[in-house]
Amino acid sequence: MADSPFLLACRGLPAPRPPVWFMRQAGRSLPEYRATKGTANILAAVARPDLAAELTLQPVRRYGVDAAILYSDIVVPVHAAGFGVEIVAGVGPVVERPFRTAADLDRLPPFDADAQAPYVAETVRLLVKELGPVPLIGLAGGPFTVASYLVEGGPSRSYEHMRRLMWAEPELFAALLDRLADYGLASLRAQVSAGAAAVQVFDSWAGALATEDYEAHVLPSLRRMLAGLADLGIPRIVSGVGTAELLGLFVDAGADVVSVDATITLTEARRRTGGRVALQGNLDPWVVALAPWPVVDQRARAVLASNGGHPAHVFNLGHGVRPETDPDVLARIVDLVHDGR
Amino acid sequence: MADSPFLLACRGLPAPRPPVWFMRQAGRSLPEYRATKGTANILAAVARPDLAAELTLQPVRRYGVDAAILYSDIVVPVHAAGFGVEIVAGVGPVVERPFRTAADLDRLPPFDADAQAPYVAETVRLLVKELGPVPLIGLAGGPFTVASYLVEGGPSRSYEHMRRLMWAEPELFAALLDRLADYGLASLRAQVSAGAAAVQVFDSWAGALATEDYEAHVLPSLRRMLAGLADLGIPRIVSGVGTAELLGLFVDAGADVVSVDATITLTEARRRTGGRVALQGNLDPWVVALAPWPVVDQRARAVLASNGGHPAHVFNLGHGVRPETDPDVLARIVDLVHDGR
Repeated sequence: MADSPFLLACRGLPAPRPPVWFMRQAGRSLPEYRATKGTANILAAVARPDLAAELTLQPVRRYGVDAAILYSDIVVPVHAAGFGVEIVAGVGPVVERPFRTAADLDRLPPFDADAQAPYVAETVRLLVKELGPVPLIGLAGGPFTVASYLVEGGPSRSYEHMRRLMWAEPELFAALLDRLADYGLASLRAQVSAGAAAVQVFDSWAGALATEDYEAHVLPSLRRMLAGLADLGIPRIVSGVGTAELLGLFVDAGADVVSVDATITLTEARRRTGGRVALQGNLDPWVVALAPWPVVDQRARAVLASNGGHPAHVFNLGHGVRPETDPDVLARIVDLVHDGR
Repeated sequence: MADSPFLLACRGLPAPRPPVWFMRQAGRSLPEYRATKGTANILAAVARPDLAAELTLQPVRRYGVDAAILYSDIVVPVHAAGFGVEIVAGVGPVVERPFRTAADLDRLPPFDADAQAPYVAETVRLLVKELGPVPLIGLAGGPFTVASYLVEGGPSRSYEHMRRLMWAEPELFAALLDRLADYGLASLRAQVSAGAAAVQVFDSWAGALATEDYEAHVLPSLRRMLAGLADLGIPRIVSGVGTAELLGLFVDAGADVVSVDATITLTEARRRTGGRVALQGNLDPWVVALAPWPVVDQRARAVLASNGGHPAHVFNLGHGVRPETDPDVLARIVDLVHDGR
């Protein structure tokens, strides 16, 4: 498996073909996903290893992508720990009693992944048997993004409570993020122990903050989380939306691979990261979902051209596959990346 | 008036004091605004020169800012031309019959600002008498942002119809944006004729696009609009949210001043614009709305420090004043910028 194109590219080593996978490749854009999952709640589906494994495998079978990503959710650890987080269909994660004061830290005792969410490692074990040479990527939420649900009480566009807490009580904010970094770390270590070959930290909403706030208030917890994985020797990918200004900080925090959104070219991303890490990305998911094929083709080739044949590149979208995406378009992109046709 | 700190800074010339104003300084954060405007619809208020002038003057009186910005809205020209745009309280601009096909271009005949929206120039004339040495900034929407309301039918987070049109029918998309550039241009020329000393083009949602899409599909219309103002010799400011990657393109299109959001430092913005233009910004409006004063103070000083005393800087927020902002905080920021205390 160390010879897999994905793992080679993550390490900046030449691979027999350029690797490609898609964030949210397992999900609503696939008819087989909709048929298999039905109306099951996401957290209920995650807790069923047979079902979660099947949903993980579907896009690997269909597309022949170079990596699988565990079917899971970033709120799984806090849900499993009993913080009172549910995922409401059409809304997202919703928290019964939001985190607002220091007393709420007591509601986040140390997380024991194997005892509190054993189904995650079980799914990973099922998958590594099935996947053979295809690496499985484990996942966790970034501390800022998980905290945003806990503090806001649900999805937010403004992150108003988060900002107030961050500026008015920076020590409590830091304590919360450190606690959540430990949750993510415990979950990721369990996933790697069970056989995950790489991990991705989704700090999806990190781009909502000014760079100096991210650096001062969030980066220490991300660094803590990534440092806690260092001894495992697996590639640590960090991703987010609107994070083009944060790429250098992700590298400083210990990322081995940074996911690049569609706002900048890979050339520029390589400049911002000082060429110190591998890049993942960065085809615009809106192009894939909405544009005619000739535009998709031209833009996919532009991503490859911007990379300029650099080995440290994993082809992907700038962020997740849109639900309205035609799977046949993704299949054509895989062929284009693999065969240059 | 040519000696005003604001106009000097726009031209990169040393001013007796650093100029400051705030995007959305006239608006819901002011109790006198809420009292004067009452429940009047924005477009109805804009059409009453006495009222629009009063709302424009309120923040100048209260804060002693170095520029006034015309109380208006970016949809005024398309509304006045009868496209069927209204502003719904709590929602934003809503369009009865969205723009979807080439036939809809006929609904955008050439705009005659003095005949179709005479109240705008009348408000400007009232204002320049009242303002004395304080310059008035005229305003128009950027072609992309105005088009987004016409095509989507209202505010959007995804711009799905816009993207489809842009990629599937790029010539029609370009024709629409050129038409709207001419609307904005006609409105701005009328405002300058009536006495506005500078103009700002609000391409607020430009940051929703990948840079290459903005360059290929939007930039030509922005260039057309700015070029149509060149003979007037007034500073042309361009602003938007999430546009840190577009600053260089704004300069290429003819901007004299670019507004910088809070995601990057002024040092970095100066690098991205090659030092060819003046910068406006870039204190985080969320800090101003939500943070305790010591944090606001520290961050306002960080903006000044990042500018490093460069004359080509107009202090402002990264984008508009949040409605929940305490006006006393803005007053303290004005004092800090003016007096360094």
